Order: sequence, then C-alpha cells, then structure tokens
Amino acid sequence: MDITITGNYTDLYQIAMGQAYFRDGLADKRACFDYFFRKVPFGGGYVVFAGLDDVLEVLEGWHFSAEDIDYLAARGFDQEYLAYLRKLRFRGMIHAPREGDVIFATEPVLRVEGAIIEAQLVETMILNVLNFESLVATKAARMRSVAGDAILSEFGLRRSHGPGGVLASRAAVVGGCDSTSNVLAAQKYGLRSEGTMAHSFIQWYGDELTAFRKFAEARPQDTVLLVDTYNTLGSGVPNAIIVAKEMQARGEQLRAIRLDSGDLAFLSRRARDMLDQAGLGYVKIAASNQLDEYVIRSLRQQNAPIDIFGVGTSLATGRPDGALDGVYKLALADGEPRIKVSENIDKITLPGRKQVYRYFGSDGMLVGTDGIAGADEAAPQRLIHPFDEHKEMSLRGVASEPLLEPVMKSGRRTAERYSVEAIRAYCAQCLTSLPPEYQRFENPHIYKVGISESLQKLRNDLRSKHA
Amino acid sequence: MDITITGNYTDLYQIAMGQAYFRDGLADKRACFDYFFRKVPFGGGYVVFAGLDDVLEVLEGWHFSAEDIDYLAARGFDQEYLAYLRKLRFRGMIHAPREGDVIFATEPVLRVEGAIIEAQLVETMILNVLNFESLVATKAARMRSVAGDAILSEFGLRRSHGPGGVLASRAAVVGGCDSTSNVLAAQKYGLRSEGTMAHSFIQWYGDELTAFRKFAEARPQDTVLLVDTYNTLGSGVPNAIIVAKEMQARGEQLRAIRLDSGDLAFLSRRARDMLDQAGLGYVKIAASNQLDEYVIRSLRQQNAPIDIFGVGTSLATGRPDGALDGVYKLALADGEPRIKVSENIDKITLPGRKQVYRYFGSDGMLVGTDGIAGADEAAPQRLIHPFDEHKEMSLRGVASEPLLEPVMKSGRRTAERYSVEAIRAYCAQCLTSLPPEYQRFENPHIYKVGISESLQKLRNDLRSKHA
Repeated sequence: MDITITGNYTDLYQIAMGQAYFRDGLADKRACFDYFFRKVPFGGGYVVFAGLDDVLEVLEGWHFSAEDIDYLAARGFDQEYLAYLRKLRFRGMIHAPREGDVIFATEPVLRVEGAIIEAQLVETMILNVLNFESLVATKAARMRSVAGDAILSEFGLRRSHGPGGVLASRAAVVGGCDSTSNVLAAQKYGLRSEGTMAHSFIQWYGDELTAFRKFAEARPQDTVLLVDTYNTLGSGVPNAIIVAKEMQARGEQLRAIRLDSGDLAFLSRRARDMLDQAGLGYVKIAASNQLDEYVIRSLRQQNAPIDIFGVGTSLATGRPDGALDGVYKLALADGEPRIKVSENIDKITLPGRKQVYRYFGSDGMLVGTDGIAGADEAAPQRLIHPFDEHKEMSLRGVASEPLLEPVMKSGRRTAERYSVEAIRAYCAQCLTSLPPEYQRFENPHIYKVGISESLQKLRNDLRSKHA
Repeated sequence: MDITITGNYTDLYQIAMGQAYFRDGLADKRACFDYFFRKVPFGGGYVVFAGLDDVLEVLEGWHFSAEDIDYLAARGFDQEYLAYLRKLRFRGMIHAPREGDVIFATEPVLRVEGAIIEAQLVETMILNVLNFESLVATKAARMRSVAGDAILSEFGLRRSHGPGGVLASRAAVVGGCDSTSNVLAAQKYGLRSEGTMAHSFIQWYGDELTAFRKFAEARPQDTVLLVDTYNTLGSGVPNAIIVAKEMQARGEQLRAIRLDSGDLAFLSRRARDMLDQAGLGYVKIAASNQLDEYVIRSLRQQNAPIDIFGVGTSLATGRPDGALDGVYKLALADGEPRIKVSENIDKITLPGRKQVYRYFGSDGMLVGTDGIAGADEAAPQRLIHPFDEHKEMSLRGVASEPLLEPVMKSGRRTAERYSVEAIRAYCAQCLTSLPPEYQRFENPHIYKVGISESLQKLRNDLRSKHA
C-alpha cells in the first residue's frame, strides 16, 4: 500500500470552490490565509509548532496526478477546469515560525499567500499535517519536561493511525523524544531507531535464559532484555544478569533490561539493586506499559531508577485530545482585508496580512506575551486583549522579535532546511526560555496574546460593515 | 510526500528478533499468532472488525525495498540476514471473520500462521491497520445506530493523523457512513465523495448572495450552501431560498443548506420551516460542528429536521479513546502450543490453533455468546468463563457457525474481495442481528466469550509447567 499526497489529498469542497473561482475568472486573484489554533490541548500552556518541513516538502511537489484528474472528471468537474488543475503547481509565499518553536492560541503561525485556488486547495493538507504533528510534538514536550535525563523513546506505531504513525514518530522527536521504534520513520526522517525484544521471542524458546542468550548473540551491540515474561524478579532479572556477565566475558555490554508490567517504581528499584550488586551498574533499566506524562512524572518523583521510557499509545495518538483544533481562515481577498464574523467575538478572525511579535525580558526569557500586528507595523508597545477591548497592556521598552519569517516564495523553499535533530534542539532551547509556570500541567499560567491598536481598528471597521 | 508500506513499516525489535531467529536456523520454523483486543472502546458493547482488506493487500505485496535494506545495513544488521530479507515475501496463511462483522474482547479475530520471521515482521503493520480501522468503524457504527435515516458523511481529514486520514475515511464507511469529504480516500477505495462549501468562499465575495449564486452556477448538480457566515436565519437561509428558487427556474435543485454553528436543533427547525414555506421541501438540511454519537442522538431525540450529519474530529480520530488495544500473541511455536503467563489471569493468552464459534437463536439473532475452541474441535456445547473457571454455561442445542474462515493461503488472498460498499452492507446486517442491549451507549450488556473445556485444560497444563 502506498499513500501519496497529491492534489486530491483534500476535501471535495475545496475542488468545488476552486471550480467556482475558476469559472468566475478569479484563478489568479491573490488571497492570504492564516493558520492558527484556538485551544491548547492536554490542558497545557503551550503548543510546539511541528510539521512545517513536511508541509513545505508537499507544497514543493504539489500537483494533481493523471489519476487525480480522472477521478475528478468522473466526479463531474468541468474539463476546462481540470485541464487547469492538471498544470497547477503551488507558487505561493509562506511565512512561519521556525519549526520547534512554542506557539499560542489565536496567533497566526502560518501565513499562506498566493492565488486563491492554490491557497484554497492546499488548506486540508496544511491543517492535516500541522494539526497532527503539533499535537504529538506538544505531547512529547510534556513528557520530556518531566523525564529528567532519562531517554524517551517513541514505541507507538502499532496503535497509531495507520501511516500517520510515520509522522507521529517524527513529531515525537521534534518535541523531545530521543528515538523511535518505527524503522520507516527513522529511515525517512533520519531519526535514531531503537528496539528491545518482545514476549513472543521468549515464548518461542519457552526457556527464558535460552531466549536471552540467543538474542544477545544476535544483537550484542544493542541488546535490551525483556524481563517480565514469567517472573520479573524471580527469573527475568536473574537470567538477564547471567547473560550480562556472559556478554561481559566476551567483551560486550548488555545495554538494558526492560520492565513492561507490574509496579514500575517497585520493580525498577529492586532490579537496580540486583544489577548493582552483580556489578552491572552500567546496565540501564527501560520501562514501558501505558506510560504518559503523568506516569513518567510520578515515577521520577518516586526516584524510580528508570533510564529509558518507551512511550506508545498516548504519545502517538495524542490521547486524550486526539487533535489540535487548528483552522485556516481567509484574511485578505484580492488585496482587501476580510474577517469571518460570528456571534461569539472569540470566533471573529483577524483581518489582513499580519506579523506576530514575541517579547523577551533582559534575561532572554519570554515575558509571557505575544502581539499580533499588521505585517508592516513595528512591534506594538501597547497591546489590546483580542476578545475584551477593555483589557490592554504596555510593552514599552520590552525587546521583541518577529515570529514569522519567510520560508517559501513562489512555491520554493527559501528558509534553511533543518534536520529533525536540529529542530529538536531548537525546540528544547525555546522551552528553556518559556518560564515554568507556562509549562506546568495543572492550571498553567495563560500566555497572553494581544493585538495592536491598528489591527483592532481594522477589525472593528470590518465588523461594523457586516452589522 | 509518499508513504509506502514495505518491510520497514515495523518496529526495530521485529527486525532484531528476526535476525536472532535467522542466526539460530529457525527461518522456516512455523508459528501461529492471534490478533485480539482486550477492551471495547467508547464504553461500548462491540467492535466492528475493519481493515482486513488493507492488511491482505499489504501482505500480498509485502517485501523489503532496496532502500529498506540499505537502511538496515547502516543500522548494523548482518549481511547474510539482509540478503535473506531482500528476497523474503509473506507466504503465510490467515484466518479471519468477514470484514464488517462484530467482534468481542478476548476472541482471536486474526490467526496468522507462517514462518516465524515473516509472522513476526508483519506484526506491527497488522496491529497498526486493524487497530485503527476497527476503532473508527466502531465509532461510525455508533453514530449510525442513532442517526436514523439521516445521511452520515465523514469530514475529518483536516484533523486526522496525517495520511492515516485516508484509512479513517474507509473505516468510517465500513461502520456506516454514507460518504466522505476526503477525495483521495474516495478515489482509492471507491467511496462516495461529498462536499459543501467553506466560509472562506463567502468571505471572498463579501456579499453572501453573490457567493451563493457563484457557487450554485459552478456546481448545480450538488450544491450545498453554508448559511451561518453572517446570520443564519437573518441572511443565510433567506439568501439560500433566493438561490434555490433561481435554480428551480433553471430546472435545477438546491441539494441542501448547511448549519455549522449555533444551536443546531433550534436552527434546523426554523430553517426547515422557512424552506417549507418557500415550497422548498426537497432542500435538505446538513449540520456539522463538533458532532459525535451523543450529539447526533440528542438532535434526533429532539426531532431536529437534519438530513445530513457531517462528522469530523471525533470520528476520524476515534476520540476520546484514540486507539483500540489490539495485541498479537504467539499461540504455537514449531507445532508446540504456547502461552504468555502473567500474574493476572486475564492477561494469560490462549494456546494453540483456535476457532471461534458464534451462537445464534432460532430467530437468527446472536444469543450473546461466542465460544473459543481448538481449531479441530466442533462447536462446544459447554463453555467456561475465560478468567473465572467457576463460571460456565451450556449451549446445548444452540445453532452455531465458525467465525474464522481462511482468507489467505501461501501469501495469496483466497477469500472473495468485497467492495467497501459491500462490507458496509455486511456490517449493517451483522449489527441487525446483534440485540440492542449490546449496542446501547450506557452500560451495554456484556457479550460473553467463553472457552472450551479442552482449551481450558491445555491452558492449565501449560500454566502449571511455568509455575
């Protein structure tokens, strides 16, 4: 099976709207769309921006295949429009933060400018990739924040959503995982792959010691022995110690044992003692079994001597939220600013081409405020609450930097391309500059996002037109 | 971007265990694995078995590509083993229920028999596809069960997990959706595609009536007008009525209007009245916005006149569970039955090659019991609770049918291949024979799965060996 992301990786209504624009002679009119989200998942205080490199890769090769066009013809779209689609490439301009940065609700974090049909047709793919990778990267960052110096490895392919698991592994590393069990993801994205052994291997041999020996002989360079098949402390750890000593005699080192059931705090402490008493202080302890950021935090608080956490379902599926609610809204139509009105002010969009400014204290830490302004405005020194006009704050004298930078022009990538490892390091650096009160799990401090006075005025002018 | 499911679509430990088996000369020894799950998601009473056709398609073409092998070589695997992998194909035998059937916790629903290395290497892919498609098909079936005769359309690609969204759309239709917005999924799987229009189209024109006219002219054959951009009852519905009458004058019919915000029960009733008073009784009402099975049920209970439900995030991500907990366990090793022991009896696996029998009443309805027996046993007339040996029940004289049938032999599909539409119809038929007490959302009746006496004896014998 093969899933290729081409033009038809979209919702049917995008194709239908494209046909209406095409018939109306608007194919070359320019639009500006914003990608942003409204709610931080997991009850948290931040989101890690992830998926940008995948989006840009798709956009650089974006086209409708012959099969795509055949399908659309059968679905009743006009021949003239389909001939146009067949030749269409994405030639737009994109501004974005650097991948791995922290982002917050309401602020535009992808600005897509281009011909209306192109910008509309790619909406679904952009949402699909950014929403998912940012969700998983955020989950991974939460785990990383409580895992101390332990290794975090993503093990979720068997529970992830079909081939979405390949993107999950990438995003997990962006957010702070060290490695993945997913071989294809490691190959595709240059991630570190890591593996242990399964219960079935021990069941095959029946005898645990024999199974351990066979496995250690086959993969001495990265042997991890699973010790809970029969009795963790009664047979698993003692047998692992025997094999570790045999390996030592051959000049090899057992990398780790893995606990996959039972009380991980209790078992890891007992196993650590047994290993240490056998002179195997270098043998690490890996743990898996329904881990999430809360279980990892609890284990660390109990000083459980776990060196490697293998995390699967909750990470690769972004449980329990399962989705970031990012949307893609029209901000400019043929040069004219546009808003989406709504009965709820928090659903009214921000018009025009915009920049986001991020404010830093003299210590280099984020002060906890981002400001949205027109793309041609300087960093605002006064910000207004986006949904409550009576609230405002002064940023006078506070240093700032623009968050959005050009990453694609005329459909070609202009920004430097970073390895996932480099993105991961950048994410870690960004999180270091985000004060801990925004990172805690329980009722995190709310990072403020305000708008400039001129943006407020523009929005109010447009609202009154629709009133 | 392109994701192709080849040999490396697996966990690294499968490759490592394969190398150990290969070095130990066991490459051609035969194993039997069972796929089963332990917990029904969504607090429900059944799971819809989905993903089988995708699994068989992958297995028929399963191989390690040259790039896969290059990666594994760089990762330090033996050259001799890699030369073996390069030529390896899946030649195993598979038994399964027909896709779309209902399945229950504990019972094996995929029996994979073949050379140990092959059967081990494909584990991750099998789990990945069956766990996800069965999750989404189950969610869709829950929605279908309360949606009455309304059309259910899957709209989730923008929130689904990367390319996993393509499988989500297929699974949604298996479980009971009528259509999807996902063009690529419709093309790949022969699904019905369906679309409406977005707010951005109306924002583009600014004037709602103009936007409606432009859209209706471009796609008269399936026009759905989104009426909540400015004011649903004040402008959206009246403008849609104007356009519907203009279409009628041209001999066309407006298919539907779509509500995407506000109180859907209230608005649908008011919109229905307005449409009916305008003589537009044929114009349907579609609704979307954070729907799930509970919201759909509530809207139907209020007699909201909604003809089409567009469901996105909760369906395509299987929220809130996000995963089916299916596992893949060794049952036979080189002809010898195997179990995985555990401190918890409910985690001890069932040894040997097995069949599942399903019992039917004289009315053709399921009696609420499945029985697991050895593959060569007749349908048991007495079943024992799998985890509580003191509980048993008699099925004397009750009609039964085997659930597992051969679907693949020597790596080639042997069972008839069904269209997704046929699978959907079969699923609906199976759900008709499952009494409603197993389908209700709140505390559903527990469908019983028992084991035969000889299977119980075999398990106990093996347990005592490991005691």
